[in-house]
Amino acid sequence: MNEFVFSYPTKNYFGEGAAKKALAAELPKYGKRVLLAYGGGSIKRNGIYEEIRSLLEAAGKEVTDFPGIMSNPTYEKVQEGARLVRIKDIDLILAVGGGSVSDCCKAVSAQARLSEDLYEYEYTAHQVPTQGVPLGVIVTASGTGSEQNAGAVITYEEKHWKGALWGTAASFAVLDPAYTKTVPMRQVISGAFDTLSHCMETYLGTPREPNLSDEMNEAVMRSVVRNMKNLSKSEGEDMAARSELMWAAAMAENGILKIGKTTDFQAHMIEHQLGAFTDCNHGCGLAAIQPTLYRHLAPSAPAQYARLAREVFGVEPAGRTDLAQAQEGIDRLERLIRDVGLPTRLHEMGITDERILRAVADTAVRMPGCAKQLTSEEIFALLKEAV
Amino acid sequence: MNEFVFSYPTKNYFGEGAAKKALAAELPKYGKRVLLAYGGGSIKRNGIYEEIRSLLEAAGKEVTDFPGIMSNPTYEKVQEGARLVRIKDIDLILAVGGGSVSDCCKAVSAQARLSEDLYEYEYTAHQVPTQGVPLGVIVTASGTGSEQNAGAVITYEEKHWKGALWGTAASFAVLDPAYTKTVPMRQVISGAFDTLSHCMETYLGTPREPNLSDEMNEAVMRSVVRNMKNLSKSEGEDMAARSELMWAAAMAENGILKIGKTTDFQAHMIEHQLGAFTDCNHGCGLAAIQPTLYRHLAPSAPAQYARLAREVFGVEPAGRTDLAQAQEGIDRLERLIRDVGLPTRLHEMGITDERILRAVADTAVRMPGCAKQLTSEEIFALLKEAV
Repeated sequence: MNEFVFSYPTKNYFGEGAAKKALAAELPKYGKRVLLAYGGGSIKRNGIYEEIRSLLEAAGKEVTDFPGIMSNPTYEKVQEGARLVRIKDIDLILAVGGGSVSDCCKAVSAQARLSEDLYEYEYTAHQVPTQGVPLGVIVTASGTGSEQNAGAVITYEEKHWKGALWGTAASFAVLDPAYTKTVPMRQVISGAFDTLSHCMETYLGTPREPNLSDEMNEAVMRSVVRNMKNLSKSEGEDMAARSELMWAAAMAENGILKIGKTTDFQAHMIEHQLGAFTDCNHGCGLAAIQPTLYRHLAPSAPAQYARLAREVFGVEPAGRTDLAQAQEGIDRLERLIRDVGLPTRLHEMGITDERILRAVADTAVRMPGCAKQLTSEEIFALLKEAV
Repeated sequence: MNEFVFSYPTKNYFGEGAAKKALAAELPKYGKRVLLAYGGGSIKRNGIYEEIRSLLEAAGKEVTDFPGIMSNPTYEKVQEGARLVRIKDIDLILAVGGGSVSDCCKAVSAQARLSEDLYEYEYTAHQVPTQGVPLGVIVTASGTGSEQNAGAVITYEEKHWKGALWGTAASFAVLDPAYTKTVPMRQVISGAFDTLSHCMETYLGTPREPNLSDEMNEAVMRSVVRNMKNLSKSEGEDMAARSELMWAAAMAENGILKIGKTTDFQAHMIEHQLGAFTDCNHGCGLAAIQPTLYRHLAPSAPAQYARLAREVFGVEPAGRTDLAQAQEGIDRLERLIRDVGLPTRLHEMGITDERILRAVADTAVRMPGCAKQLTSEEIFALLKEAV
């Protein structure tokens, strides 16, 4: 087992009514001035905004709104938030939404306490911010697990760059499965696929000898596959499936399954650039890429891909080679994606322009933990294949 | 999925040489005065004491020794430690040892900051301490997972009581698999059985519908069973097995597998009283009790016991009833215990006196999450059967 250092700073409040319980316990720890951050305003239409705002006011907080955080949140939006935090001398950032709102606020928190430009600080000076404005996240759209760690995926439009910035991990997170009912079903399912993708990208990294992290990961993946199917079949009514998916999303990104592993995350790196150039939905982008990518990669790590096929997708060995088992596993992954209504091809999302695919291939980070370190040409070829 | 609140305050440093790395990162956070706590002095014979002490002195710390923490640590020892912490105005307690040293120090930490008597505070006033002297744990004997949570099992000799006190969770823990080589092989294996016992007692609680915590728990249990066998067969040489067992011990008690569950822990409650009356080894006591206990309990939750049998002990359903599968699983558990050289009967530990068994049965806490809430008479009957 590889050496590791592991800490998990986020306190989780899970279950129906968790927001009220969490805010009662957490708000007294912080000063008066709260930044209430959210996205396009859906939380105003579905009542969550009013609920949270009245809890904040009842606790005597002065609330400053930070609305309009877009999916694929931009670096400009991060700077806007950081300015607001400084001007209003904010004591607590409360992010209400999905991974985009959470990611943006993690970066806002770090930028607000840093005199240098956050991107330059991390990518030119190669430093990691160590301070941030305290942050709590109330999850509505589940799947990214963003509320469980310090990484923030941010789109820097001027640079056509979408990548990870190191921000501030949330001090507390609220996971109320009932809140996920406020989100369109397609987004719930694409979020669940994002979770499965995180698990697979962790599992397919190194080392690939049997280890406890991978064995727990198999359990999480089986749970996600089963509950995606159940939630899809029930047309969103299966609350047990919503609950399990919500906690699985947290487990996939709280670091427990990554212990002792160097992760792969090549699919995410390609999808990030696809998102940067097309603004596509993250989970859908992954779904459209991953089966094709895995057909390219399986021959470089057939034993681990075969194990994934057997342990998660129920493939029987039946005396076949690892590669044959692996391929059947990928076929089943593709069938799962289709069965739950997500795209398995890029053209289903309107992405067919080869100039875009070329730009994605040329700018995607190529990951060292991947079964085979890909060239830009190989990425371009498999993107064309995925159209 | 049941609602829950989960936090995990302990930062883990895992791997060979982890103590040096951890102390370099952690010691600057605390003041000068360190209490160095340990057991019977084995760490002086095997060199760990010198290693840690010189790291502390190189960091400019003033070290006060707190030696002689016994297995089944006493309430009196807790009070002795708390007095020492107050007199020396200690800034950091550093516990070096197994679960007994860690448990004792977790209670010392809380008692030192509390003007009331800790036992009275918790069991008469029904309060939980919220402050403690900062604590770090360097694990030598692995298995209890004590370094991962705030619970401390303490023996109050005057009261013939052995039970849980709520103490302070460690701020950091050092898990170096090489350190476990300083511990006799029988203790390493009995520690691993303690881990398996924690997992089973969590798994057999409620709810018993399939859930993510249980599915991850199955993965941990399979890993523990396999690595116990491997370590035993290799006569302690298999370092991969030592590593996996060490992290599995942490996973069994860091709370992740208990999420959404009401745990059982009836075997532990019986063993605690057995320990209080006979001072027996904890893991051995559990091994001698658990198969007999489970034969009594399986008929009350046959589906979950059958699932344990299939998922962990490889029992094939072969068209049999849940109870028949469950019984074969318990037979295999008993065989595992025998194969790794632990006792499956109390007489192997010299415990045969019915007056002791009577006292154990009369004083053991009877747990609500158990498949069947036992009477004292039933506990007495099964203890006689386990002789």
